[in-house]
Amino acid sequence: MRAVDIIIRKKQGYELTKDELHFLIDGYVKGIIPDYQISAFLMAVCFVPLTENEQYLLTMEMLQSGEQMDLSSIHGICVDKHSTGGVGDKTTLVVGPILASFGLKLAKMSGRGLGHTGGTLDKLESIPHFQIQLPVLDFYNQVNEISLAVIGQSLNIVPADKKLYALRDVTGTVESIGLIASSIMSKKLASGAHSILLDVKVGDGAFMKDVISAEELAMAMVKIGKKNHRQVIAVLTNMEEPLGKMVGNSLEVIEAIETLKGKGEKKFTELCYALSSELLIEEGICQSKEEAYSKIKEKIETKEALEKLRQMIQYQHGDTHVIEDYSLFPQAQYTFDIHSLKEGYVNSLHAQEIGHCAMLLGAGRKNKEDKINLAVGIKLHKKQGDFIHIGDTLCTIYSDFENIEEVQNKILQCYQIEEEKPKEIPMIYKVIK
Amino acid sequence: MRAVDIIIRKKQGYELTKDELHFLIDGYVKGIIPDYQISAFLMAVCFVPLTENEQYLLTMEMLQSGEQMDLSSIHGICVDKHSTGGVGDKTTLVVGPILASFGLKLAKMSGRGLGHTGGTLDKLESIPHFQIQLPVLDFYNQVNEISLAVIGQSLNIVPADKKLYALRDVTGTVESIGLIASSIMSKKLASGAHSILLDVKVGDGAFMKDVISAEELAMAMVKIGKKNHRQVIAVLTNMEEPLGKMVGNSLEVIEAIETLKGKGEKKFTELCYALSSELLIEEGICQSKEEAYSKIKEKIETKEALEKLRQMIQYQHGDTHVIEDYSLFPQAQYTFDIHSLKEGYVNSLHAQEIGHCAMLLGAGRKNKEDKINLAVGIKLHKKQGDFIHIGDTLCTIYSDFENIEEVQNKILQCYQIEEEKPKEIPMIYKVIK
Repeated sequence: MRAVDIIIRKKQGYELTKDELHFLIDGYVKGIIPDYQISAFLMAVCFVPLTENEQYLLTMEMLQSGEQMDLSSIHGICVDKHSTGGVGDKTTLVVGPILASFGLKLAKMSGRGLGHTGGTLDKLESIPHFQIQLPVLDFYNQVNEISLAVIGQSLNIVPADKKLYALRDVTGTVESIGLIASSIMSKKLASGAHSILLDVKVGDGAFMKDVISAEELAMAMVKIGKKNHRQVIAVLTNMEEPLGKMVGNSLEVIEAIETLKGKGEKKFTELCYALSSELLIEEGICQSKEEAYSKIKEKIETKEALEKLRQMIQYQHGDTHVIEDYSLFPQAQYTFDIHSLKEGYVNSLHAQEIGHCAMLLGAGRKNKEDKINLAVGIKLHKKQGDFIHIGDTLCTIYSDFENIEEVQNKILQCYQIEEEKPKEIPMIYKVIK
Repeated sequence: MRAVDIIIRKKQGYELTKDELHFLIDGYVKGIIPDYQISAFLMAVCFVPLTENEQYLLTMEMLQSGEQMDLSSIHGICVDKHSTGGVGDKTTLVVGPILASFGLKLAKMSGRGLGHTGGTLDKLESIPHFQIQLPVLDFYNQVNEISLAVIGQSLNIVPADKKLYALRDVTGTVESIGLIASSIMSKKLASGAHSILLDVKVGDGAFMKDVISAEELAMAMVKIGKKNHRQVIAVLTNMEEPLGKMVGNSLEVIEAIETLKGKGEKKFTELCYALSSELLIEEGICQSKEEAYSKIKEKIETKEALEKLRQMIQYQHGDTHVIEDYSLFPQAQYTFDIHSLKEGYVNSLHAQEIGHCAMLLGAGRKNKEDKINLAVGIKLHKKQGDFIHIGDTLCTIYSDFENIEEVQNKILQCYQIEEEKPKEIPMIYKVIK
C-alpha cells in the first residue's frame, strides 16, 4: 500500500476502506507518512467529502490512536457535554452544576481557548488556586462524590486529532464537515460517556455559519455516535451575537455564578435550561420539557445547582469564597464605558469580532503559546433588539492598558444600529438525535 | 501575506494574483513555505483548475526561479522541440537532424527517462563515448557550426519545477492541465528558442489519455507561449502503441539512424515528416506541407540529415562509426523471439505496458537513482493492423538475463488479437498553434 495511491483514489471519488484509512492515520501518527501527503489528502477530502462510512472509520482510527477514559469505576449515569465553540460560551459552568444536582455524572476533560473563542479551562483558572490537573483517581473519586469534575486532558487522548488539527489549521483544510465530525466525535467517544450532548453553535461567531451546514455536521456526529452505541443529542444554537453579557475569563465565571443564582441573562438562561433538559429527558429523569424546566428552576431556587459548582471549586482546591465575593477574582486595572454615537435598535452584534476584541485585550490567545490575561474582557450592556439613545453605554471594557482606541473603534463597528426593530432570532434552532 | 490564506482563496474559487503566486513559489523555492502547504495548494488546484492568467503567472514565477539560456550568441533561427513523453519516442534524433539540415538551429537541453517512458539523453549515451555534458560555450559553438546539439541540463533551469514536480509525484497532484502546462512551458521558455514545437502524445502510453484533455493542454501551452511572444505549435500525436519498432536505448538510436537512411517504419517516418514540416512552414522555409515533405525527402535521400546526426555525434565525442556498424552499440547477451499463440489482426498493442516491459528488462528506471541497461529492449515485428498466424514472431526481446518469463507473459497480453481488422488510427490528430 502506498499513501499516494490512497490519495489518488480519494481524489477520484472512490470510497476508502478501513485498511486504507488505517494505513494513513496510523502511518501519520507514527511519523512514517509525511505532512505533505496528509495535507494533500485533507484537501482532497474538502472537495470529495468523506462518506458516512469513511467518517465512521476515520473517527475509529483517530479514537484508537490514543488512550481512552475508563468510566467503569463511576457509579451512576455518565453524561458528557461539548460545545463547538463560540464567544462568551460559559454554558458548561452552568449546565454541569445543574446536571450534577440531578445526580447525573459529568466527568469532563476540557480544553483551552484559541482565537476568538474561549476555553473552559482558562475560565476556571480565573478562580484563585483552582486546579485543572488532578490525578486520575482523584478525578474519578470527585465525580463519584459530587457528580462533577472539569479537568485538563491528562490522558493522551486522540493524538491523531491533535496532529491532524494542527496541519488542517495551516493548510486551509479546517472546513470539512466530515473532518470536523470525526475530530469532535473521536474525542467524545474517548471520553467514555454513554450520552453526549453536543451544543452545535451556528452563526457569525461559530465555525458553522448557517443552519444547513450545522445540521449536516450534527447529523454526521449523531450517526457516528449511533454506530458506536452512544446516544448523541445535537442542539443547534444561536451564535450570531455573544452568549450572555460577559466575554472574558473571570467575567464569564461571574456570569455563570449569577445564572446559577437565578440572575442570569434571559437568553443565556434559556439556553442552559434547554440543553440541560435534553439530557434529563434522555436519561428518563424528566418526562417532558415542561417538567424538566420546572425541576431545573427548583434546583436554581434551592441553590442546589450552585452548591455543585461550589463543591467542584472546593474539590479542585479553588477559593469557594468567589461565589459570594467577586472581588476575589483577578481584577482589571481599568474600566471604560463605550457610548453609542447613534440612536436606534441593535440590529446585530457581531460575535466573532467581539471575540476578537476580547483577544486583543488579552483575554484570548492568537497563538497556542500566548499567555492570557484572566481579568480583562467586555461586558455587553446592550444586545440585539435593545433600543439605544445617543450616549447610552453600549458596553464596558475591562482592560489592563489605557489605550483602548483600536478596541473601542472595533466594538463600535460591531454594533449595527438601525431604525427598525430586528426580528428576534431563536436561541435554539433545532435538536437532532 | 500568509500561505494558508492564499490556499483558502484558491480553494474557494478566487483567482490568485501575481503577488500571491510569487509569494507561494518564491517562498517554496527558498524553503520558507513548507511542502505540506504547497501540497494542499496543489490538490486545491486539481479541483479548482488554474485560470488562463494563473497558468501564465505560475509559469513566469517558475521561469524566474532559475537561470535561462541565452541564445543571443547563436546566429540564425533557434527552434526547440519537446515531446510530452511516450514509449519508443526517438523523434528528436530524427527531427533534430532534419531541421538542422535546413539550417534551423536546435540547441536542446534534454532529460532522462523515468517509468515507462524513455529519455533522449539515455538513448544518446548508448553511442560509445558520446558526451551529454558540454561546457556552455562549446554547446553554443556547436550549434553555430552544425546547427544541432543535445545536452543535459547544465544550467539551473526552473528549480521551482523540479521541487514542485517531485512533490506532485508523491501527493497525487500530477494530473492537472494547468500544472502540466506551467511545468512544460517554464522549461521551454527558459530554453530561449522563439519557435517551440510541442509533440503532445495522446493515448495509452502517454500522460494524456484522450484527445480532449490533450487539446486542452495544448491550447494552454500555446496561450502561455503567445503571452511571452513565442510561437508554440502543438501537434497532438498518437501514442496508443509504441512509436516505431524499437523500444530500448541503443535499439532506438539504431531505428533513428535507419529512419534518417530512409528505411524507417512508415508511421514513425510520417510523424517525423509531419513534425519537421510544421516548423519549416512556420519559419517560412517551406510554403506548404507538400513542399516541406518533398524537401525533407530530398534531405533524407541526399543523406544531408544523416550527416547532421553524424556531425553531432562527432562534436559530442561519440563514435561516428555506429552509423554504419550497429555492432558497435552495447549488445544484449540474449535475444528471444516471442511467438503468437493466436491468429488474427493486432487490434491494439498497449504502449504503456510495452514501456513497462522494457523497464523490467532494464531499459528504464523505476526510481530516479536506478542505473539502466543501454543494450536491452524490445523489437516489435508486428504492430496494430498486422495480420498474424499462430507461431508468427510478434517481437524480439533483447535481454541480459535468461529468465524472461514475466516479460514474455506481459508482452503476450499487450497484443490484443481479434478476428476483425481494426480501423486505422491516424498518427496526427490535430495541430494547434
